[in-house]
Amino acid sequence: METKNIKAFGADAAAAALTPMQIQRRTLTPHDVEIEILFCGICHSDLHQVKNDFGGAMFPMVPGHEMVGRVTAIGDHVTKFKVGDLAAVGCIVDSCRVCEYCKESQEQFCDEGVTFSFNSADKTHGGYTFGGYSESIVTDEKYVLHVPESLDLAAAAPLLCAGITVYSPLKHWNVGPGTKVGILGIGGLGHVAIKIAKAMGAHVVVLTTSATKVADAKRLGADEAVLTTDPAQMAKLTRSLNFILDTVSAKHDVNAYLNLLKPDGSVVLVGLPPEPLSIAAFSVVAGRRSFSGSNIGGIAETQEMLDFCAKHNITADIELINIQDINEAYERLEKGDVHYRFVIDMASLKN
Amino acid sequence: METKNIKAFGADAAAAALTPMQIQRRTLTPHDVEIEILFCGICHSDLHQVKNDFGGAMFPMVPGHEMVGRVTAIGDHVTKFKVGDLAAVGCIVDSCRVCEYCKESQEQFCDEGVTFSFNSADKTHGGYTFGGYSESIVTDEKYVLHVPESLDLAAAAPLLCAGITVYSPLKHWNVGPGTKVGILGIGGLGHVAIKIAKAMGAHVVVLTTSATKVADAKRLGADEAVLTTDPAQMAKLTRSLNFILDTVSAKHDVNAYLNLLKPDGSVVLVGLPPEPLSIAAFSVVAGRRSFSGSNIGGIAETQEMLDFCAKHNITADIELINIQDINEAYERLEKGDVHYRFVIDMASLKN
Repeated sequence: METKNIKAFGADAAAAALTPMQIQRRTLTPHDVEIEILFCGICHSDLHQVKNDFGGAMFPMVPGHEMVGRVTAIGDHVTKFKVGDLAAVGCIVDSCRVCEYCKESQEQFCDEGVTFSFNSADKTHGGYTFGGYSESIVTDEKYVLHVPESLDLAAAAPLLCAGITVYSPLKHWNVGPGTKVGILGIGGLGHVAIKIAKAMGAHVVVLTTSATKVADAKRLGADEAVLTTDPAQMAKLTRSLNFILDTVSAKHDVNAYLNLLKPDGSVVLVGLPPEPLSIAAFSVVAGRRSFSGSNIGGIAETQEMLDFCAKHNITADIELINIQDINEAYERLEKGDVHYRFVIDMASLKN
Repeated sequence: METKNIKAFGADAAAAALTPMQIQRRTLTPHDVEIEILFCGICHSDLHQVKNDFGGAMFPMVPGHEMVGRVTAIGDHVTKFKVGDLAAVGCIVDSCRVCEYCKESQEQFCDEGVTFSFNSADKTHGGYTFGGYSESIVTDEKYVLHVPESLDLAAAAPLLCAGITVYSPLKHWNVGPGTKVGILGIGGLGHVAIKIAKAMGAHVVVLTTSATKVADAKRLGADEAVLTTDPAQMAKLTRSLNFILDTVSAKHDVNAYLNLLKPDGSVVLVGLPPEPLSIAAFSVVAGRRSFSGSNIGGIAETQEMLDFCAKHNITADIELINIQDINEAYERLEKGDVHYRFVIDMASLKN
């Protein structure tokens, strides 16, 4: 297969600093779109993968799965895009396309497992995938999203992972007018979830351990913000919420949040705490409550989310950085010191 | 309030042996039905309450919430029953009647908490409730069930708790034709669940740690029975079940069962393990799976379950005992040595 050399930033080994490197992108096959990457968000899972926290990491690794850019070339059979269009690539760049889930565009559940945008074996073209900390990407148009022109491109990048990760469960669990929704944790995921849940019409209650974030929660659109370390505030919420989106990636007591649910309510985890969570039988048996999980979303739903965000003018709150500052950004991300998502201005890669 | 002395069997203190005693039943108010109790099932929670495992036990205590009998008297305003009718009383004998849940006959979720058949403060009449190990009971007709004449009365008694406890979640999670359902554990709850899930039209896979129960599972109607201690059998089931009813009341690894679910599947706990269960984030996040709970059911659904069981000729597999053998039965129940539910022939109370 013919390839093209491009500039990228990546890690040569687990937990190594990210440095400039060259990678190869395939030349376009008939269904491929080439996209010049203008902005790429930094997701906490980029950091996990570079550190090989989940195992199976392949190096050199180029992270990044929140890519927004412009189409620079298209294959002969491409119908959805033309050169010059805005385009985005998220977490998924391929899947089996024939299983029951792929057929209904729930590719995240693909029977054979999806091909992720980076650090993932490429079953179609061989080798493994490189992500968005790079000049450009070549992707089958089936997995490429349209970006509405009205969105701020840099601030829209995090929607490709953080946005769909929270939109999908809010939609699936029918959050909307008349529902009272808790958002647990205000970080990259939580701050977007507040905006989306509010735009869906729900009454939004932010649950946070941080007194300084209470004010920020209201600025972001929350109807209420509750300090979870205050037993009196928590007691008042008992049996009052229909749904809680749990964005926390550290160990925490889920029982305390299950007890805030009305009967038939759900706590839905989108964070990835490394240690198992402990759940008392009564926490779910009483009131037929559920502890569930959710992971990104399918391609059709990702497009729906982008269109929804355009309609409601929702983007992430970001800090825009140059790619040369990536290692410092990772250090700050590890400490939770970001409001609320780093995005790389990929023009800096040309420097 | 006028009362009537009746014979019963109960415990004078926590973990004490059950002995004959006299208790008082109220005289009939206009909406009350008096029922001569013919059979009463023994539920594991009878044992828990007598031992005060959940705290708050009141003594003397007369357990029993699986009562089947015949109406012997009715209050002036009773419309649903006449003297001589078969009748049953299950776990719930009163609730607030005005909250959103009571209004839709989901009394198990009552905002004020239901009045249970025994060991529960009686908010309407004062004092606390005495259960079915007794000659008779007086209950508001709203909480009394009709027992179809076709059912074997002794074997029908366990349906009032075990039956509704498994029927309600199977119904709520839409088990039926086309669904592949796991029943985890074959005991008082599990053996009835096999029969009901099969009658609902599901493909039923029993999951058991006991090689001796594999054959029994098929006799009870299961399509498959899998030894959960055999990794090869478990691996074959990965990502294949839509729903698992978890009837286990001891500590167990729920992750192993979550991994058997297809995307969007649920493990639903109806057992009450005393220690919290440990759930890895990936077990629910991957495939949008749920760990949920369920607890008995409402009055309308209990009647629906009895009618369903009559239509499909479903009752429990029981060992009928005399009330004088209750303490030995409790000992065997504690060891799990019962196939599959003890029922007391209440005629023995007259001896």
